[in-house]
Amino acid sequence: MAHFGLDERIMLPNRRNDILTVGELLVDMISTDYDADHESFQYQKFFGGSPSNIALNARKLGVRTLVAASVGEDGFGKFLIDRLRNAGIGTDCVQAVDVSTSLVVVNKSQSTPIPIFYRGADYHLGYNAQLEEALFNSNIVHFSCWPISKVPARHTIERVVESAKKHGAIIGFDPNYHPMIWQRGEDGVAYVKSMIAKADIVKPSEDDAERLFGQDTPARQIEKFLKLGAKLVILTLGKDGAIVSNGKETISFGTRATEVVDTTGAGDAFWSGFYAAVVKGYTIRESLSLGFAVSAYKLRFTGAIVDLPELEAIKDMYGLQEEWI
Amino acid sequence: MAHFGLDERIMLPNRRNDILTVGELLVDMISTDYDADHESFQYQKFFGGSPSNIALNARKLGVRTLVAASVGEDGFGKFLIDRLRNAGIGTDCVQAVDVSTSLVVVNKSQSTPIPIFYRGADYHLGYNAQLEEALFNSNIVHFSCWPISKVPARHTIERVVESAKKHGAIIGFDPNYHPMIWQRGEDGVAYVKSMIAKADIVKPSEDDAERLFGQDTPARQIEKFLKLGAKLVILTLGKDGAIVSNGKETISFGTRATEVVDTTGAGDAFWSGFYAAVVKGYTIRESLSLGFAVSAYKLRFTGAIVDLPELEAIKDMYGLQEEWI
Repeated sequence: MAHFGLDERIMLPNRRNDILTVGELLVDMISTDYDADHESFQYQKFFGGSPSNIALNARKLGVRTLVAASVGEDGFGKFLIDRLRNAGIGTDCVQAVDVSTSLVVVNKSQSTPIPIFYRGADYHLGYNAQLEEALFNSNIVHFSCWPISKVPARHTIERVVESAKKHGAIIGFDPNYHPMIWQRGEDGVAYVKSMIAKADIVKPSEDDAERLFGQDTPARQIEKFLKLGAKLVILTLGKDGAIVSNGKETISFGTRATEVVDTTGAGDAFWSGFYAAVVKGYTIRESLSLGFAVSAYKLRFTGAIVDLPELEAIKDMYGLQEEWI
Repeated sequence: MAHFGLDERIMLPNRRNDILTVGELLVDMISTDYDADHESFQYQKFFGGSPSNIALNARKLGVRTLVAASVGEDGFGKFLIDRLRNAGIGTDCVQAVDVSTSLVVVNKSQSTPIPIFYRGADYHLGYNAQLEEALFNSNIVHFSCWPISKVPARHTIERVVESAKKHGAIIGFDPNYHPMIWQRGEDGVAYVKSMIAKADIVKPSEDDAERLFGQDTPARQIEKFLKLGAKLVILTLGKDGAIVSNGKETISFGTRATEVVDTTGAGDAFWSGFYAAVVKGYTIRESLSLGFAVSAYKLRFTGAIVDLPELEAIKDMYGLQEEWI
């Protein structure tokens, strides 16, 4: 298994698919007006779900992606599947179940939005032959806290992680723990920690770290993730950039954002840029830089999904051939 | 207990409240464009839930109403409670629970819309002291198939029906059975029939009757409801009006609608007009006529909730002083 030396390239075997995201594929219903708590009359429907956004972005950046997810047998499920197809992403691993497609209602807010969650089809994701086949043929597997927050999807992720380890795939995990999506009456924090132990790469925000470990300095938070077993920890600090450590080397990244129009999906943009770069043979350090460049590019536009160019175009745009940090 | 003679008035005891509706209070998210299956981009948020619409309408028609329902501790729940308050309806029986406020996404359609149901807070309605007090002080209790379609709300309705019978309240039940809202793997039809047996007044549509009993003539469908134990059966036939029977007398009503702009909420408008008239001392026959007049009035406007005048104004508008059928 890769040890994520910052100036090394990860040698990936020759497989049919680069990145497989497993988890939420859902509709975001976002208010057209800014409001504090869902006073809005008008809402607009968007493709959503963090891992699905990552797959869509990474595909645009020029790598091969697959989405494993569960949607309802309804108009919203059809809308999401159509969007994946139009982006050239295979949908063999999208399962249709007899439960409404999951929905998140979001108030557009100048402070922190308060989403209302409608968990439906998403957490009914099962482990089946199509998912296993996709796993065997993928080099990177990615998921967030959504599918592990409820059974039966949690059991599916447990089998996904087991299979991914057996087949030498890199496991990326977004420890975006929030009690609001967690199964009631259960200690989500302990479970998320057990999952960090199994992951290769984690990208917590400072808020994520605080919800998991309490308040502490960035350096000490990173230590806690490493101690649990994560091999590469990317702690994002909002406008202050990020700190990354593999336990031996630690580097800081300033933000590359020059213009911030909308922060929605900036984290997903990072993941997709970082993964795409790893797949394309850049070093970890270069891949991190490219991830932050893609994120900065996304920040200039509204919405979680923006019209990304190929990774190399963004690399040129941010002058990344000369200077890598 | 009243036997619903068509030319009789129901003598109601002197109680603090006229109509208590128990059940769904939720947000309807309706597409702004006509579409076949949720292709729409834009949606608008409305106050919804059939019994809650009935309470709001009946209040406008000039009688006292209360709503017993369960909403989430979120912006949508707050929006619904505010709407009730603004209409002058007490909200002591609206329970707030740690589950998202129920939501129905509806595509505006020229044929039959295909709603997507997000059942959340609504079916967590519990039987508590406030609900019992409201029951003891109400003359009419109304509910639909929603709360009986899932536990724990079903158990609450069972206690409501028991208490209502003990206290001599009239029980109105909308047998709007649909497998899509029913708890999976359970025979909803059998349960709905057991509830019809306990109700005084039921208002099935022809589609409801068919889902419960299979296809048959209107006269024979009415017989089946009466045989189960309902005392007054109002079978609606869309543009062909309605047939009403108490087992001894049967009458037909032609539609009073002259202009049909939007059929949404026409049934709820009927219920509210009928109940308001019963409360105001009209005979059953007169109350039915007034119900159909209120429904015809509603059909002229868009939306489930329209700005109804007092019942007497609608009575005059439709010339109901001379001719009662």
